[in-house]
Amino acid sequence: MDQRISAVTLGVDDLDRSTRFYTEGLGWQQNGGEKGVIAFFQLNGFVLGLYDAQMLADEASGGARGSGFGGMALAHNVTSKEAVDDLLDQAVKAGGQLVKAAEEVFWGGYSGYFADPDGHRWEVAYNPYWPITEDGRTLLSAD
Amino acid sequence: MDQRISAVTLGVDDLDRSTRFYTEGLGWQQNGGEKGVIAFFQLNGFVLGLYDAQMLADEASGGARGSGFGGMALAHNVTSKEAVDDLLDQAVKAGGQLVKAAEEVFWGGYSGYFADPDGHRWEVAYNPYWPITEDGRTLLSAD
Repeated sequence: MDQRISAVTLGVDDLDRSTRFYTEGLGWQQNGGEKGVIAFFQLNGFVLGLYDAQMLADEASGGARGSGFGGMALAHNVTSKEAVDDLLDQAVKAGGQLVKAAEEVFWGGYSGYFADPDGHRWEVAYNPYWPITEDGRTLLSAD
Repeated sequence: MDQRISAVTLGVDDLDRSTRFYTEGLGWQQNGGEKGVIAFFQLNGFVLGLYDAQMLADEASGGARGSGFGGMALAHNVTSKEAVDDLLDQAVKAGGQLVKAAEEVFWGGYSGYFADPDGHRWEVAYNPYWPITEDGRTLLSAD
């Protein structure tokens, strides 16, 4: 298995609401999908999909619905502490929920968490040890 | 918010077991982390982390543990139907669970699902419409 992920799919209860959260709320651009069924976003070398939660449960879990927290978190790193605070504010204004206010964390960075309208957890972090390339890729180290 | 994800973190019950699943089982190379605490894998422009499920729950969910299916699925695309079958076989041999055998799917591809040792869902798909670049990035379209 090559060392990559091609897509992350989030189950959503209301596709329009969740799509608006990521587009109007957070400023992303939708790049494809099918109205009322699925929305695709081109990310840094892979794809984020928003997809009906029950349909995803039917496909991926034999019909058992998940809660939006299944022990998995997404992270969005930024280049300063101020940018962490700003993005958490923006997420809350867009209808997200603040799960954990940003704070200095033991590994030497600064991070907080918000939940999107379906409960999916996003960490927003300033991590001085993980470089972010000009085209938005995140690397474990500079070499 | 820039349109990218920096990391995907999977909560795991037994870090050694889960690390072996991805390394010895699926052939990935661990690129960092801290023994007994967290394992990092450099993926296609972002990072996958394996992290103690309770610690992740404390950080990301106020202590409430998730089940491993929270309405989110990861996908790994390959370039042929045979490669889908082969990878699902490999995942099961490595200790994963077959959630859905591969089949022709309505959107024109061929896909199945496995669960990793902690229940995180991976779709393995042949998607003829999403190009995979030579360096492993997945794109929504060729242009």
